[in-house]
Amino acid sequence: MAGRNHLFVPGPTNTPHEILSAMHVPMEDHRSPIFPKLLSPILEDLKKVFRTEAGQCFVFPATGTAGWEVAMTNCLNQGDKVLIYRFGQFGHLWAEASRKLGFDVEIHQVEWGKGMPLDHLEARLKEDKNHEIKAILATHNETSTGVTSDIPGVRKALDAASHPALLFVDGVSSIGSIDFRQDEWGVDASIAGSQKGFMLPAGLAILGFSQKALAAIDNSNFPRSFFSLKDMAASNKDGYTPYTPSTPMLYGLRKALELLLEEGMENVYARHHRLGEGVRRAVAAWGLQTCAQAGWDSDTVTAIVVPADKDARHVISTAYSKYNISLGAGLSEVAGKVFRIGHVGDMNDVSLLGAIAGVEMAMLDNGFDIKPGSGVAAAIEYYRSTAK
Amino acid sequence: MAGRNHLFVPGPTNTPHEILSAMHVPMEDHRSPIFPKLLSPILEDLKKVFRTEAGQCFVFPATGTAGWEVAMTNCLNQGDKVLIYRFGQFGHLWAEASRKLGFDVEIHQVEWGKGMPLDHLEARLKEDKNHEIKAILATHNETSTGVTSDIPGVRKALDAASHPALLFVDGVSSIGSIDFRQDEWGVDASIAGSQKGFMLPAGLAILGFSQKALAAIDNSNFPRSFFSLKDMAASNKDGYTPYTPSTPMLYGLRKALELLLEEGMENVYARHHRLGEGVRRAVAAWGLQTCAQAGWDSDTVTAIVVPADKDARHVISTAYSKYNISLGAGLSEVAGKVFRIGHVGDMNDVSLLGAIAGVEMAMLDNGFDIKPGSGVAAAIEYYRSTAK
Amino acid sequence: MAGRNHLFVPGPTNTPHEILSAMHVPMEDHRSPIFPKLLSPILEDLKKVFRTEAGQCFVFPATGTAGWEVAMTNCLNQGDKVLIYRFGQFGHLWAEASRKLGFDVEIHQVEWGKGMPLDHLEARLKEDKNHEIKAILATHNETSTGVTSDIPGVRKALDAASHPALLFVDGVSSIGSIDFRQDEWGVDASIAGSQKGFMLPAGLAILGFSQKALAAIDNSNFPRSFFSLKDMAASNKDGYTPYTPSTPMLYGLRKALELLLEEGMENVYARHHRLGEGVRRAVAAWGLQTCAQAGWDSDTVTAIVVPADKDARHVISTAYSKYNISLGAGLSEVAGKVFRIGHVGDMNDVSLLGAIAGVEMAMLDNGFDIKPGSGVAAAIEYYRSTAK
Amino acid sequence: MAGRNHLFVPGPTNTPHEILSAMHVPMEDHRSPIFPKLLSPILEDLKKVFRTEAGQCFVFPATGTAGWEVAMTNCLNQGDKVLIYRFGQFGHLWAEASRKLGFDVEIHQVEWGKGMPLDHLEARLKEDKNHEIKAILATHNETSTGVTSDIPGVRKALDAASHPALLFVDGVSSIGSIDFRQDEWGVDASIAGSQKGFMLPAGLAILGFSQKALAAIDNSNFPRSFFSLKDMAASNKDGYTPYTPSTPMLYGLRKALELLLEEGMENVYARHHRLGEGVRRAVAAWGLQTCAQAGWDSDTVTAIVVPADKDARHVISTAYSKYNISLGAGLSEVAGKVFRIGHVGDMNDVSLLGAIAGVEMAMLDNGFDIKPGSGVAAAIEYYRSTAK
Repeated sequence: MAGRNHLFVPGPTNTPHEILSAMHVPMEDHRSPIFPKLLSPILEDLKKVFRTEAGQCFVFPATGTAGWEVAMTNCLNQGDKVLIYRFGQFGHLWAEASRKLGFDVEIHQVEWGKGMPLDHLEARLKEDKNHEIKAILATHNETSTGVTSDIPGVRKALDAASHPALLFVDGVSSIGSIDFRQDEWGVDASIAGSQKGFMLPAGLAILGFSQKALAAIDNSNFPRSFFSLKDMAASNKDGYTPYTPSTPMLYGLRKALELLLEEGMENVYARHHRLGEGVRRAVAAWGLQTCAQAGWDSDTVTAIVVPADKDARHVISTAYSKYNISLGAGLSEVAGKVFRIGHVGDMNDVSLLGAIAGVEMAMLDNGFDIKPGSGVAAAIEYYRSTAK
Repeated sequence: MAGRNHLFVPGPTNTPHEILSAMHVPMEDHRSPIFPKLLSPILEDLKKVFRTEAGQCFVFPATGTAGWEVAMTNCLNQGDKVLIYRFGQFGHLWAEASRKLGFDVEIHQVEWGKGMPLDHLEARLKEDKNHEIKAILATHNETSTGVTSDIPGVRKALDAASHPALLFVDGVSSIGSIDFRQDEWGVDASIAGSQKGFMLPAGLAILGFSQKALAAIDNSNFPRSFFSLKDMAASNKDGYTPYTPSTPMLYGLRKALELLLEEGMENVYARHHRLGEGVRRAVAAWGLQTCAQAGWDSDTVTAIVVPADKDARHVISTAYSKYNISLGAGLSEVAGKVFRIGHVGDMNDVSLLGAIAGVEMAMLDNGFDIKPGSGVAAAIEYYRSTAK
Repeated sequence: MAGRNHLFVPGPTNTPHEILSAMHVPMEDHRSPIFPKLLSPILEDLKKVFRTEAGQCFVFPATGTAGWEVAMTNCLNQGDKVLIYRFGQFGHLWAEASRKLGFDVEIHQVEWGKGMPLDHLEARLKEDKNHEIKAILATHNETSTGVTSDIPGVRKALDAASHPALLFVDGVSSIGSIDFRQDEWGVDASIAGSQKGFMLPAGLAILGFSQKALAAIDNSNFPRSFFSLKDMAASNKDGYTPYTPSTPMLYGLRKALELLLEEGMENVYARHHRLGEGVRRAVAAWGLQTCAQAGWDSDTVTAIVVPADKDARHVISTAYSKYNISLGAGLSEVAGKVFRIGHVGDMNDVSLLGAIAGVEMAMLDNGFDIKPGSGVAAAIEYYRSTAK
Repeated sequence: MAGRNHLFVPGPTNTPHEILSAMHVPMEDHRSPIFPKLLSPILEDLKKVFRTEAGQCFVFPATGTAGWEVAMTNCLNQGDKVLIYRFGQFGHLWAEASRKLGFDVEIHQVEWGKGMPLDHLEARLKEDKNHEIKAILATHNETSTGVTSDIPGVRKALDAASHPALLFVDGVSSIGSIDFRQDEWGVDASIAGSQKGFMLPAGLAILGFSQKALAAIDNSNFPRSFFSLKDMAASNKDGYTPYTPSTPMLYGLRKALELLLEEGMENVYARHHRLGEGVRRAVAAWGLQTCAQAGWDSDTVTAIVVPADKDARHVISTAYSKYNISLGAGLSEVAGKVFRIGHVGDMNDVSLLGAIAGVEMAMLDNGFDIKPGSGVAAAIEYYRSTAK
């Protein structure tokens, strides 16, 4: 099929050619005297993205899913109780991972389309007088529903309850794209992956830990080896890793950090907000709803609810096979009910307008009652009025 | 600026990643025994794109502009009379090149927006009883105005006049994109460049010659060395070149030929027609005119005339600086009066819809009286109804 | 420093440009309908490299070190006894990993320079009447000492003792390079990484499991999630993965498999044997010893013992800083006593002769009593007489 | 065939991965406002490589062969007399090109293995009272014989004769590698190509002109268009080009200039001298002769004369088919009599030692009476004693 595939899944995201070229390198000895000159500055610069000065950042040669496990297996004890609100597929999967790892998972169901219920959380924490809850597993940006939770609010709830639980945040689809502040928000473990805001292929779990979380390692009895933060930290200290790193991914990450920091994190956040808002204007112009309820909008992905008589999967398959656009599917509870447009990473107005136009075509092809050009027109008006 | 640059100049065109990767190779010895296995099949496959069985194809390590010169310096004598109709910038430049090379250039002015005037041509040829005109230099697709000429009609005019002039055709922005048939149309020299329909970087003149043109070489007294077709043909015979070739460009060309022939030339033409027609529908929906008059539309580039009180350059600069789209400028006589959208090469609906949307934004920003989304809507309706 | 770095560490190995280019791709949706066309054939072709028809192959987005953990955490119970012979750094690290994961590790020390002591093993297994030993962790090719163990012999010992322990084999630096036969040798878990014989960057654990090992999963109580073979197998069945894969690495792996299978595994083994033997001839010509004792030679890496009054680290640092060659260091017990030349992966005679010459320079610079050119001469004579 | 091809032809040379990656870019609009930021600094930095402050540098999208033609067609009149000494294949080809272009070529034969005969030249120039000789075409480094001529000596001869002829120098295999000083030596046209010292693929003629040469353009009646220096200079003034440039090649050239200038031209020259001297030591150790007679040695390529009973072509074909080394063949008068080792561009000791070893194998295979390892030993001793 001629022309490029238009990738609008919420991850992996489009990798800029500068990053791909930075990764196109001959292999090298990761035990050479110059390897630390590659790794150490990366670990320092990551702190600027995670917004931490007190904490530490780490990179594991695995994926974001492994990042959850690094946090849990290092900072908790076997069988510890963890609290999770399930309002989307990634929260669901995190709960599943916790269960498989043998933790005592307390799951609260939340309507998909909303995020962390702060009042409930605060009440539950206050109720937990014995501090049996050892960690809160919070999904910052729930990729499956396009919902962003209020992490500062989670911290406030913890503080209001004077509860010592660790705060683990899945920031896979937020860190590097939308506002995230590890220190200010009191996050103990921040979990990102390389394939979203960092604009790389999948293959790196990128993590931030608070000192409190790092101190917890000493009390943890969880069996771990590959995921050992202690081993990683010990090697990182001298600029090395405990086992073979992927140097091309590190070269890519270095370039990604340059791009992000050159743009400036505040500008990155603002850009994603603008991109997301344009999509939301288009959705409104089509007369459709987002899966995210008012106030829960994500700036990196929009899940769009199709009318009751339609199947979102048809929109996705038409978009893919007829127009070479890759959209995100509805997962689990919203399968068939929503399709998703990712707008995270290396993205700009015109790319997104192409996607909106393509989505219009796919919806029209499937008999949606929308006016051709209406979504694009709404987005155009918004982008024009807010472009620099 | 985040996100990709959207390249809609009518050349260079977007290079597919398969081609870029095919070019990312270590250097190699072009005198090795295996080099002919690279070059010879390329020269054969090119004939399928030029639609010639009787003729021969050649690749020079230079640009399309040099291709003009290869044709003229090999097949004509110094001072020969050549006939050219000037209806755009590239025809103008070809005439200039001819003049600089010392040919006797007979130029006829044609209104920009039209192409080869067949009646005038036939009359002129019939008038030329002594056959002083040695070659007709015809621009198949005039990139500056978005006009496609009727080359079969040119052949008919020559035949009607029983005139032996050679027919040289500048197919730089047509060959490999829109219908072109060297043998059937009786073209003697077909001139293409690597950076349009072949989807490569600039750097290759890609040429087709009829046997009649090749025979003319023996009678030519023009001083030539680098451009010597005879030397090139002699080396090509064994699969080599008379001087160092660019092997990465040849690897890229091999991949480009695979992509084109896999899609099928008829499908390539149909795709470009569909892409072009969508743009024209958008232009009509905006209430604007194309530079090309009715019947002269090009399927690889559309030049859009701005209202008299507007400057097309502002649209282009807004598009570039605010929205990261690169559009083609109006050149020479139409500078400021038109801007151009290239839709040639590795292109599909969604890319082009992004461009149309971006152009709408740039026009609105410059006070054009158009309805937001109108062009996109028109193109959407057309693309939807014609997509496979 | 001008010119290329000459990489002769025993991993990562040199990545052929075909593989690097195959990895230079835009990101894509790993949930698309065409993704299985990428993954499924890879999993099938891997079986040809692991030499298994009865078993199954898997790819995890992590490193070979994680591969150990996949085997142990899926097929064993917490606290199970595992048997390991420690005759090099990677066996040592595997034992360490086992210990960290809470297994009951029975370690037997073996002189570094030898491999699996089959008689001792057989006796130990026969002694273990209650079958407390649940798994034997055998390092096929001990990268730190350049020793290759006799895995068929290990299988024979197990059979002679009629012992049901699982046989886990670390084939990180053997699989894809030297003779390895999962089915024939009765290996239950075969562990490889992408950065040795597969000639890719680090970032994939590439694994083979017997049906016996897969059946053991159901009885395992070990907490695991990211490393869950069951989840991986369930997703793989349809050509997908349970979490985001690295598509560029998979494209690279596909190309690596093409290269390996095109050469033919027997030819790959023969080539590595020839390469290794040339290095051993050079070592003999220098009057030095390999760390591997007679009969234990590895064909993928040679560890060379320096005279007692020399420090191997100086050879390595001279080679690196003066001649831009990266050699492998002696690790742990042989630190300073050996340096290592890797000859695994995409390698040929002339590359290796350059390395031998470079090593000669570095040794001479450090006052070694060797004759300039002697090692090269010996290798030349061997390579010449055995080249095709 | 496993492992890399070892490229030791004297061009194209090995392209460093940094340059290949710099070239792996999406296409862009060469008429954009930022294009001059790419081109203009390149043209300035080239002057540092050509060693000219008074002159100007130019880049044509063609090859070095075209560079000859740019010089001749712009600065001379049709039929002008040019003087050339023929002592190798490239001088021969330049003479041929001159003849084809219609110049009055005065050729003096010089024994292949020597360079410009300064006494003869001075005498001839003094004899030419009427200054009929309009240009001297001097090959600085004759790639076919491995001979470097004394260009400052040529200038002295011109000055001694007070002769106004232009001095054109073919520096294709010297500029960017061995000492070259356009201003100091009074060179009027310096001709280089991208595929030697500049370490790029072929595809650019890279040129330097003195003010005297540029002034001569106004008096030239030679028909030219693509090669028009005047058009190029006019466009370059604003940072643009008169026709489509190859932006990837320009990005590659920018990176090449960074690498060269970072190393420092004097260091580049010294490195090439060291590399060349090592090869010459090896040749002497083999008991063979270089084609270059004493004092005429080239530091970028060594042509090695085989014994009378041997055919150099066999060495080359054995090296290529058995050992994957590409050597340069003897051309024309020395076909079969010499083979050539290129040591130009991105090259270092260990690469070259591999080549020397490989050449030893190929010679031994063809029954040469040399001692295995002897050439390598001699080169090792030299490289060791001179390495930094």
